[in-house]
Amino acid sequence: MDDLSHLQHRLERILSAKNNGSELRRTLTGANPADLAVVLVRMRPEERLALFRQLPASEAAALLQTLPDHAVADIVAGLPIDLAADLLEKMPGDDQADILARLTQSKEEEILRAMSPEDAAEVERLLSFPPDSAGGLMVTEFLAYPEDWTVDDVIEDLRSHADEYARYEVQYVYTIDPDGRLVGVLRLRDLLMAPRGTQIAALAIRPPLAVPTSATIQQLRQTFQQRPLFGLPVVDEQGRLLGVVRRTDVEQAASEETGRTFLRLVGILTGEELRTDPLNKRLLGRSVWLVTNLTLDLLAASVIAMYQDVLTAVISLAVFLPIISDMGGNAGMQSVAVTVRELAMGLIRTGDARFVIMRELPLGVAAGAVLAFFGAGVAYIWTGELGVGFVFATALLLNTIWSVLVGATLPLFLSRVGLDPALVSGPVLTTLTDIFGFFVALELARQVFVASA
Amino acid sequence: MDDLSHLQHRLERILSAKNNGSELRRTLTGANPADLAVVLVRMRPEERLALFRQLPASEAAALLQTLPDHAVADIVAGLPIDLAADLLEKMPGDDQADILARLTQSKEEEILRAMSPEDAAEVERLLSFPPDSAGGLMVTEFLAYPEDWTVDDVIEDLRSHADEYARYEVQYVYTIDPDGRLVGVLRLRDLLMAPRGTQIAALAIRPPLAVPTSATIQQLRQTFQQRPLFGLPVVDEQGRLLGVVRRTDVEQAASEETGRTFLRLVGILTGEELRTDPLNKRLLGRSVWLVTNLTLDLLAASVIAMYQDVLTAVISLAVFLPIISDMGGNAGMQSVAVTVRELAMGLIRTGDARFVIMRELPLGVAAGAVLAFFGAGVAYIWTGELGVGFVFATALLLNTIWSVLVGATLPLFLSRVGLDPALVSGPVLTTLTDIFGFFVALELARQVFVASA
Repeated sequence: MDDLSHLQHRLERILSAKNNGSELRRTLTGANPADLAVVLVRMRPEERLALFRQLPASEAAALLQTLPDHAVADIVAGLPIDLAADLLEKMPGDDQADILARLTQSKEEEILRAMSPEDAAEVERLLSFPPDSAGGLMVTEFLAYPEDWTVDDVIEDLRSHADEYARYEVQYVYTIDPDGRLVGVLRLRDLLMAPRGTQIAALAIRPPLAVPTSATIQQLRQTFQQRPLFGLPVVDEQGRLLGVVRRTDVEQAASEETGRTFLRLVGILTGEELRTDPLNKRLLGRSVWLVTNLTLDLLAASVIAMYQDVLTAVISLAVFLPIISDMGGNAGMQSVAVTVRELAMGLIRTGDARFVIMRELPLGVAAGAVLAFFGAGVAYIWTGELGVGFVFATALLLNTIWSVLVGATLPLFLSRVGLDPALVSGPVLTTLTDIFGFFVALELARQVFVASA
Repeated sequence: MDDLSHLQHRLERILSAKNNGSELRRTLTGANPADLAVVLVRMRPEERLALFRQLPASEAAALLQTLPDHAVADIVAGLPIDLAADLLEKMPGDDQADILARLTQSKEEEILRAMSPEDAAEVERLLSFPPDSAGGLMVTEFLAYPEDWTVDDVIEDLRSHADEYARYEVQYVYTIDPDGRLVGVLRLRDLLMAPRGTQIAALAIRPPLAVPTSATIQQLRQTFQQRPLFGLPVVDEQGRLLGVVRRTDVEQAASEETGRTFLRLVGILTGEELRTDPLNKRLLGRSVWLVTNLTLDLLAASVIAMYQDVLTAVISLAVFLPIISDMGGNAGMQSVAVTVRELAMGLIRTGDARFVIMRELPLGVAAGAVLAFFGAGVAYIWTGELGVGFVFATALLLNTIWSVLVGATLPLFLSRVGLDPALVSGPVLTTLTDIFGFFVALELARQVFVASA
């Protein structure tokens, strides 16, 4: 905290002094990147504007890129159009597209108009692909040469465009035919080790492994896991080279997707709330989810309302009903989480319900038995009534089995019908487990206490 | 599913025929990597053994690396020691260490003894660092040369060791002093573009950006986000070059950590259950969590037991208590998830409770008001009693505020005292919100219904 507030105050002082570019840059360079990200995301918009005005665009862009995309989009949306366009142009093409895709249509168009026509055209092409596909993830900066070039031709080209290529992060050089179709690939080190005068066609691996623009993160990840490659060329339907998707971008996208899934599963609808986001945006996202849950809870609780006679007869059941509800949710969410993760890893498919049930059933029976044994003991000691212990234990056992089976298969079903399992599983699960658990407990109690009375 | 079972049957047939190496390899090469991973993880151990026996070790290792580390560890643990050592030696050093760290001490030692002495020494050194630090993530395969070497010397070395270096994924060449201390760094393309005969000292950037072995994933990630680098050299306290931590390994480790956090938050203790894991291991992990929750639920429900007179007077409250409990948990978990994520991203620190409360309080009040308004309406229409509507609404309002504040700050407190927020937040949160919610609802009901009666 001390370092943080120190950095914050220093920046505030420098920014209020104006025209203090060199001290500002010294402070930024010297600061811990983690602290800088925190200070940046918590700054007031006018301070941030002052900061970006005093920094070279490339440094401001590098600073922004330490923040999550949606926070960058919020910041960029608040900047003057020209400054926003300048900053974006200093970022890699795929990041430009990610950020623009999060702005309003009109803002996006304004910024594109303020960018250089080539950059704008490039980004618009990237924007035409889904963000989590090879097309959306690829960078369009790559090196491709005709097959009949020699090693010397290529080195000469590299030398004469050194400044431009500096931001390309070149790993591979591609060979293409006159129509731009990908023919081969060679590594930089192959160029280095080859005798001068060699034609690059003789060094290239052909045909190279390439992916279509539609390849998913999961497919890309698995390909990279099997092969020690830094990037994969992306081609269109005619085999023309469009860009390169880098391993590191795929890993980052996968990491962000896992984070979003995790937040959605517990009710952050967009999957990306930060506390520095605007209050109304945060409130809307959370409330929609909470009201949905409340509605479903009321639906489930109506089962209890139908058994008021049983409750009046065995008032101690009121103590155990919230526990049955909570434990059903807990056991079910464990299973939901494992299924959601296995789906994301590609280790199960939506048609694998039978496999999942076979693996989950013994677990549900065993875990349910453990809970029933423990719960029956406590309930009996507490209430002194064997009947309550029996009802509570049986409800825990059956509801645990039901919950793990529903939890394990629900995400498969939701995926199949095109709903996001992370978002929908939780509320549907708890409703189904509440209704089942309340019904089992109250109906059993009626048999044991009311019917026999 | 069709492709999957087709592949599975084909592999079974080939494996049962023995000595069918070429058909096996053709099948594996032709198969979709995602399908292969699924089939591999679901195979019976003896089938897997047959598969690995017929494959060259490097291909078997590549196949294994598509699976999560803990699944690979389980598989490796079941293989004969020699085969296990052969497979591990074909993986990068950091992966070897990750997998060995998951085996029993005796298994680890047996496998290390079966490996070549150099590889074993390398891995033992990596094992001495925490797995999620720069030391644990780095690869020890890198290219470092004395400063006075020329470009030609380096290229000659690259050429004469081409086979060995092929698996190095070289991006940078480092210059070192006679004591092995890191002095400078140059990119492969700098070598390519330099005139022959140049000393590499003249091309190197010095001093290069380097990290200590103790750097965390979060620190590494932020450094990589700010700078377009493929790898960072890792040095010891004397500045000696020990290895290189690659951007892609950092992204992958961060992604895995997010996945583990997500599973732990909903009660998968190890953070990495797969349905193909052994049943007893899965059962133990899930039951411990469920029994803990049941115990805490019983504790919270004892509040209800103290108010049996109130419940008897207003039996319809039994319908609303599970809802108050569930909604408190829901609202609180949203806040827990946002805090856990912001902590992981480094955007809040454990000392930021005040900042978090200031941002969370207005949200809690507003979300609570929405729920109270909606809940009061439904409760009144349902029961026809204004008093029940009032009690339910007030309990929802106050409990939502309490829940978001507890949820938002609890992970900070837990981190501070050295507990894993992902693991401990959920049960502690629901206990605290249940006790508060039950108490508010029942005490209010006593005032409204019992005291006035």
